[in-house]
Amino acid sequence: MLNAIIENEFIGKLTEQFRRSPLQKNRAHESDAEIVRPFRDSDRLLALTTDSIVEEIALGLYTDPHLIGWMTVMVNMSDLAAVGAQPLGILVSEVLPGDFPKHSIARLQQGIHDACDACGTFVLGGDTNFGGQLILTGCALGAVNDRKHLSRIGCQPGDGLYSTGVLGVGNAFALSKFAGSAEAEIEYRPIARLSESQSLPGVASACMDTSDGVIATLDQLMRLNNVGFEFEEDWELKLHSGSKALTSAQGIPSWLLLAGQHGEFELLFTVAKECENELLRSAEKDHWHPVRLGNVTEKPEIRLPLYGQSVLLDTGKIRNTASQVNGNIENYIAQLLMIDNEIRKGASEHVSE
Amino acid sequence: MLNAIIENEFIGKLTEQFRRSPLQKNRAHESDAEIVRPFRDSDRLLALTTDSIVEEIALGLYTDPHLIGWMTVMVNMSDLAAVGAQPLGILVSEVLPGDFPKHSIARLQQGIHDACDACGTFVLGGDTNFGGQLILTGCALGAVNDRKHLSRIGCQPGDGLYSTGVLGVGNAFALSKFAGSAEAEIEYRPIARLSESQSLPGVASACMDTSDGVIATLDQLMRLNNVGFEFEEDWELKLHSGSKALTSAQGIPSWLLLAGQHGEFELLFTVAKECENELLRSAEKDHWHPVRLGNVTEKPEIRLPLYGQSVLLDTGKIRNTASQVNGNIENYIAQLLMIDNEIRKGASEHVSE
Repeated sequence: MLNAIIENEFIGKLTEQFRRSPLQKNRAHESDAEIVRPFRDSDRLLALTTDSIVEEIALGLYTDPHLIGWMTVMVNMSDLAAVGAQPLGILVSEVLPGDFPKHSIARLQQGIHDACDACGTFVLGGDTNFGGQLILTGCALGAVNDRKHLSRIGCQPGDGLYSTGVLGVGNAFALSKFAGSAEAEIEYRPIARLSESQSLPGVASACMDTSDGVIATLDQLMRLNNVGFEFEEDWELKLHSGSKALTSAQGIPSWLLLAGQHGEFELLFTVAKECENELLRSAEKDHWHPVRLGNVTEKPEIRLPLYGQSVLLDTGKIRNTASQVNGNIENYIAQLLMIDNEIRKGASEHVSE
Repeated sequence: MLNAIIENEFIGKLTEQFRRSPLQKNRAHESDAEIVRPFRDSDRLLALTTDSIVEEIALGLYTDPHLIGWMTVMVNMSDLAAVGAQPLGILVSEVLPGDFPKHSIARLQQGIHDACDACGTFVLGGDTNFGGQLILTGCALGAVNDRKHLSRIGCQPGDGLYSTGVLGVGNAFALSKFAGSAEAEIEYRPIARLSESQSLPGVASACMDTSDGVIATLDQLMRLNNVGFEFEEDWELKLHSGSKALTSAQGIPSWLLLAGQHGEFELLFTVAKECENELLRSAEKDHWHPVRLGNVTEKPEIRLPLYGQSVLLDTGKIRNTASQVNGNIENYIAQLLMIDNEIRKGASEHVSE
């Protein structure tokens, strides 16, 4: 079922020859960061992750070097947050074009510095090379302090589905960059949910960050756990208001803020019914507000109240579309709008029956 | 003094804004891998390093995908060896060109797998992206098992200078790729000196790998420790024989096998006089043979017996040449030959005086 997704299948192919370390606690796809027991005579755990910023730069989505530096840190810190680890630091590998201006390098480094500051963490080291295009790779290390880590595995039908914040700003930012007017620019500077995630071990049954957008995240959780998700009726209230305003100004259905693959770097997590009060208490103590999105269901399908109905989303198709358009953003948006059109048609036929 | 080297100065500029983590044990430039204490309530140490393969691919030095995968692992494992750490695993970030053939991907992954096998380690995770050129980045994690790590700092005048093996195969390989004939190809598949390095903690006073060639390594150790190095008279016997044969067939002075920036990934290390016997005993027990190259001297300069004299090498100029030629290999070789010419001229003038 995982392999119905082009990206999963490709990763499977890439890694099929590799052996797993006996000291590694997670299997492939099972958590946002790798969980390793570093010392044989101790049960302490580390989290380790790597993520590069490549296509976002090449496609022109990230143009400000400060944002590029910021995101290099945040995408990796977000993976640490998703396993409940506290960051120890990050290594940054940079490929700089030979003609990259000095002031842009300074802004890039400032973005890295500011993001580390915002996360209370440090650049531990790195590597620099010169190449044809700007590419940044982070590799972050974290400590799992209570010897319990969060993973993508464990949600059960009946659990509540939550987010650490409102949704949609990642895709709204992409929309404003690619199809927007100058005045409609969306501020995008996500902060990894490291402190929020410290409330989750022992409370959340599964957790994953929305680095690829909400629907891709839920689709992956669905395939890994063989469960489904249904959104509550008021899901639109859980969208970031500026993002919703942008879609409505552009005549784009707001649910596509969940469907696009440019994420908001919130954590999506599930909580068993009997733990929901504990979550709320713990979050209140830590000064944050979990956003309730819906519920985990038995049947492995994802349902969203849309056009007066409970619509079954073809999330596999939505995810694979991103892989199939080869970076053609116009085509990507057109494909998503076609999927919306089909849903709308289906809904009106259903009503008229 | 460090900043007289273009690369050091650039790294200094890149990192000047960054704060150091209180859990990090090394300072910039002081060791091949970053040394971190991961848990506040334990004094156990981790080693962490990242290194990318970019220019080697872009310049056509590495063309076989198996070698590219192999080197991605080995350059990082070599950094772990240079601090005396035992590898826990590696994360691999890949940027693949959109049209990269499937069979090349398979060979790339096989190279990664085979190198991990040779080091007794594992791929823990990774990230894959698509871009304009093939780029591989590794990030390796190791455990410093006896709570003592090796660093680049600590050599004293009078110490012996050693290598874990014969020298020059990295530059001979580059020479055979760029200026050689097909029949003169040099086999290049370095293996990180992880097992050898386990003899070194407590014995070696300083250690660094020759990832940038022997002279760049000694130059950096000279600047960091404010000491010098002189090679023994029989240094040519410490060159890899096939590599020496190649240079002599091509009429290239064999000492340039030490000067070029494409390394052999041996460890260079220094040992106090009173520890040299211990080194030999320990190495014999572990079935390897340290290669004695010369001695640490008081004056910060690097001397090589050449053309009947003890030649003072301008190692700063030799290193900076690599930065200044902007990847033009022909020019690089020409510049190194000019440096040799000057030395030769100086030697003959000295003799005729």
